[in-house]
Amino acid sequence: VKSLATLATELQATWHREIPLAAVMDVQIASCTDAELVVRAPLAPNRNLHGTAFAGSLFSLCALTAWGMTWLAWQQRSSGGVIVLAESRIQFRKAVAGELLCRCTAEPAVLDAALAAFATTGRAKLALACSIEANEKPAVTFEGHYVVHAHGR
Amino acid sequence: VKSLATLATELQATWHREIPLAAVMDVQIASCTDAELVVRAPLAPNRNLHGTAFAGSLFSLCALTAWGMTWLAWQQRSSGGVIVLAESRIQFRKAVAGELLCRCTAEPAVLDAALAAFATTGRAKLALACSIEANEKPAVTFEGHYVVHAHGR
Repeated sequence: VKSLATLATELQATWHREIPLAAVMDVQIASCTDAELVVRAPLAPNRNLHGTAFAGSLFSLCALTAWGMTWLAWQQRSSGGVIVLAESRIQFRKAVAGELLCRCTAEPAVLDAALAAFATTGRAKLALACSIEANEKPAVTFEGHYVVHAHGR
Repeated sequence: VKSLATLATELQATWHREIPLAAVMDVQIASCTDAELVVRAPLAPNRNLHGTAFAGSLFSLCALTAWGMTWLAWQQRSSGGVIVLAESRIQFRKAVAGELLCRCTAEPAVLDAALAAFATTGRAKLALACSIEANEKPAVTFEGHYVVHAHGR
């Protein structure tokens, strides 16, 4: 079984190798536990015409972080599966004028329930939330509904 | 007064010059009328690790297209304003395995009401919908709530 640190390194490498936008965004895993994943990206490649963070970069960072949280849980506790974002809601409350820092916190019970459903049926749904702060206030809130299914289904 | 075709050329140039992610995505305006804006992007720079379109690219394309629809309406009929995405909901129904083609259709009455509110108060809100099809079936549906405010407010 690989350590969480090893898996986090693999996750970041996978993003940079397989998803051109993630490479351009320069996403970097800042910290990682069983219950939380924090991913950062510099402002420069992610700016919009106002000089603040582009909504598409903020969404992409949230989508990657929640996907990564799910991927880490599956890699640690299961034999793998295909993770897909099915639906999402995002609110942009304040502009982000510096580094983008996204935090995804997952209740262990939510992950455990999804993993148990997956083990039984080969399919699971889970909802994950992410937030990005600016000057210690909530700037972006994201909720993503992910579906995990066994390979080939 | 500039023609719609001239404004569309300016819009695409602004995206490529001011938003690094839009340049990497290689977004191109496919067609443009007073009631509809269609924007395309090739799959290669927008792929994910499954070889289909990255959710972040699909969101970004929708957000740019609806923003562009608003920008064109403001450029044609008003003295300008700052357009910001406040909130959005997006559904990913099917994978997109080829070119990304995003269509934003706006009711003239919705744009007219927002422009009238802006003229009176210096502020307007409007909701715009975008869709991306795959094999002639809806693949992505996006709804964005935009706020337009006068410069400096």
